[in-house]
Amino acid sequence: MADQSTDLLTRRHDALGNASPLFYDRPLELVRGEGVWVFDADGNRYLDCYNNVPHVGHCHPHVVAAVTEQIAKLNLNTRYLHENVVAYAERLSDTVEIDPAAVMFTCTGTEANEVALRMAAFHTGARGVIVSDFSYHGNSRQLAALTSCFETPEPFPAWARAVRVPDPWRDRDGRSDAEIADAFEADVKEAIASLDEAGFGISAMLIDPSFANEGLPEMVPGLVAKAANAVRAAGGIVIFDEVQSGFGRTGQAMWSHQLCGVKPDIVTMGKPMGNGFPIGGAIAPRAMVDKFEERSNYFNTFGGNPVAAAAGSAVLDVIENESLMQRAADTSQHIVDGLEQLKARHGILGNVRSRGMFFGLDIVKPDDAQTPDGAMAKRVVEGMKNAGVLLGRIGRDDNVLKLRPMMVFTKENADFLLERIDQVLGEVA
Amino acid sequence: MADQSTDLLTRRHDALGNASPLFYDRPLELVRGEGVWVFDADGNRYLDCYNNVPHVGHCHPHVVAAVTEQIAKLNLNTRYLHENVVAYAERLSDTVEIDPAAVMFTCTGTEANEVALRMAAFHTGARGVIVSDFSYHGNSRQLAALTSCFETPEPFPAWARAVRVPDPWRDRDGRSDAEIADAFEADVKEAIASLDEAGFGISAMLIDPSFANEGLPEMVPGLVAKAANAVRAAGGIVIFDEVQSGFGRTGQAMWSHQLCGVKPDIVTMGKPMGNGFPIGGAIAPRAMVDKFEERSNYFNTFGGNPVAAAAGSAVLDVIENESLMQRAADTSQHIVDGLEQLKARHGILGNVRSRGMFFGLDIVKPDDAQTPDGAMAKRVVEGMKNAGVLLGRIGRDDNVLKLRPMMVFTKENADFLLERIDQVLGEVA
Repeated sequence: MADQSTDLLTRRHDALGNASPLFYDRPLELVRGEGVWVFDADGNRYLDCYNNVPHVGHCHPHVVAAVTEQIAKLNLNTRYLHENVVAYAERLSDTVEIDPAAVMFTCTGTEANEVALRMAAFHTGARGVIVSDFSYHGNSRQLAALTSCFETPEPFPAWARAVRVPDPWRDRDGRSDAEIADAFEADVKEAIASLDEAGFGISAMLIDPSFANEGLPEMVPGLVAKAANAVRAAGGIVIFDEVQSGFGRTGQAMWSHQLCGVKPDIVTMGKPMGNGFPIGGAIAPRAMVDKFEERSNYFNTFGGNPVAAAAGSAVLDVIENESLMQRAADTSQHIVDGLEQLKARHGILGNVRSRGMFFGLDIVKPDDAQTPDGAMAKRVVEGMKNAGVLLGRIGRDDNVLKLRPMMVFTKENADFLLERIDQVLGEVA
Repeated sequence: MADQSTDLLTRRHDALGNASPLFYDRPLELVRGEGVWVFDADGNRYLDCYNNVPHVGHCHPHVVAAVTEQIAKLNLNTRYLHENVVAYAERLSDTVEIDPAAVMFTCTGTEANEVALRMAAFHTGARGVIVSDFSYHGNSRQLAALTSCFETPEPFPAWARAVRVPDPWRDRDGRSDAEIADAFEADVKEAIASLDEAGFGISAMLIDPSFANEGLPEMVPGLVAKAANAVRAAGGIVIFDEVQSGFGRTGQAMWSHQLCGVKPDIVTMGKPMGNGFPIGGAIAPRAMVDKFEERSNYFNTFGGNPVAAAAGSAVLDVIENESLMQRAADTSQHIVDGLEQLKARHGILGNVRSRGMFFGLDIVKPDDAQTPDGAMAKRVVEGMKNAGVLLGRIGRDDNVLKLRPMMVFTKENADFLLERIDQVLGEVA
């Protein structure tokens, strides 16, 4: 089997190119997924604590059945009427505090952020965009240019400004939460003024309100709300990118911005939306969508087709029927409690942060909790794979372990995870 | 049932917005598809001669089975190894004349054209793009700005030039094919010079080599090849957008540019690729992909996942197993022969053009074959719907009936289509 995977790797390099991204020093050939588990070609199983797309579990029977049924019946674009599409859009709209709202279906988060930025530019007549200084919102030219958490070939645009998201654990510097939030608000206001001065004006602020790529810093009360209000006061549109943190992952709310005490102008979504079936979307005020549509004739061939709607709707069913938000809240607390205990035992575990089923574990130098250790974090990721758990890394120093266990995680799964972390941190340190 | 659809239309307007595009004066509620047929909520059936996404027929059992099997097994991103993905990429690469080639999977044609333009800009260090003056390549900001066949809110970019694609039937003006091709080449060279002068340089020419949105004008030998050579001579990249005309639709070749006697630098694809499962892609020289990937870290979450690859591979199976390219060639000829006969009987049918299973029927004033009649074309589209056939309109004057029958069309289906066209042209004229 080792030979087969090696051969597959060579063929993959030939077929997709040598630099097409792969996880791990020795990439995994995964052949099957079931619930929280994935299985490689050798029959080894792994607890999947990384992949946030199979939100309600790999191959959830209810979602599989919904797709299987609809794809055998009709799979066609939205220029015809279809009950699935309308019912799903209604259901989705009901989850956001925009009223009346309309949904624009896309196939991906990239397309959702693209259409959100297009709407914002059209609506405001301005071009300026504010993002965080360690963010990623998609792979189109415009979004690649806006990317600030890794290098892209496209220069950061003259019409954009990147504001630094504070990490209170590292950057508090004796300040109160209110002072940190005020400082962030001041940065946003400065960015607006700078965009105005450069003649671009403020079109939109595009942020993930949970700041996942930024390393999931501790939420500072009022920080997002103050920034959003500053943008709105200047005539800009607030776009919350919920591609990573939406659909109840926080356990506390359907959308992570709802934890910030602030209303959205546009909400974008993707990844977990169809549990793997490609679907994304933007929800915005209906009047804004209408005006944009009249002028743009926006159409997305596969976006929100009846199969995508069946998948999306089935995901919402499972979240409701299996009380997954409550379960996420409970399991998340159990994991945090366990991690706090591990922190006391392992010097390299510097800090533990969580937004429900989204965890950031700061790996640091053992005698210096303020010094990130990206190389050690990599060893932990590889070690965890060998111990049968999939997770990843993020953050400015690539030192934050990124865990996004599925919403269907049980306490038993959580204990398995905690045991393996305990074991691997002991081994690598 | 009429009430139900009216109610659904109202709900749809509320949920997706009032201007989200719909076909027909009274939109169709389609509930089922099977092969070349679709069925509305009242049980009426329609011969689908419009939709090019269900390429091998609505709900083709082989494609449905492939998706159903894989979606119950594993649906995960390409950062793990998977046989489906590699095997499909290998198979796809073998169909293009780029060697060695690599495939970049996306979810849509928009994303495919986005990554193609990003690669071209990176590879050439230039920004200038040439498109045709009546084209559409996607719905992202960049591609919306490049759109020239309808108005978008984004201004046509300073870094782009639109060249007019000649319609020999209307614009021949006594010229030979060679003269028309030379004139087009001269326009392209002028566009390159203009982009150079403006400081953008030439990054890429992005065209659909069958010029589908342009109204499917008669192919002028040498026209595309001369333009492509001019672009390449100036250091630019030739991107053939095969989203509409690829996958054997012409009946003569897998890709429509192969009929132009010219090799591609990058080929983009989408719509029919997965028979409705969202998948797109760009195929480019492996060295170009490698260099871009190393620098860009391009990744597409849903792009080319094992389910998408299963769908795409099943489509290729069906094309091969059912000899659909040969069938398309035969059926296409049968339809063209029939349409030529109808032309003799109906004064408003001014011209008939075909690229295999892609037909453009020029609707004109009855006594003036050179005067397009868009209003009459609309009446034909509505009349054909009432007669049980779905088709659409394109072209500069919205007067070209657009027919894209599926690859599985039989002669019997073709005769049904011809009879209905005969009937409706008689009724509306």
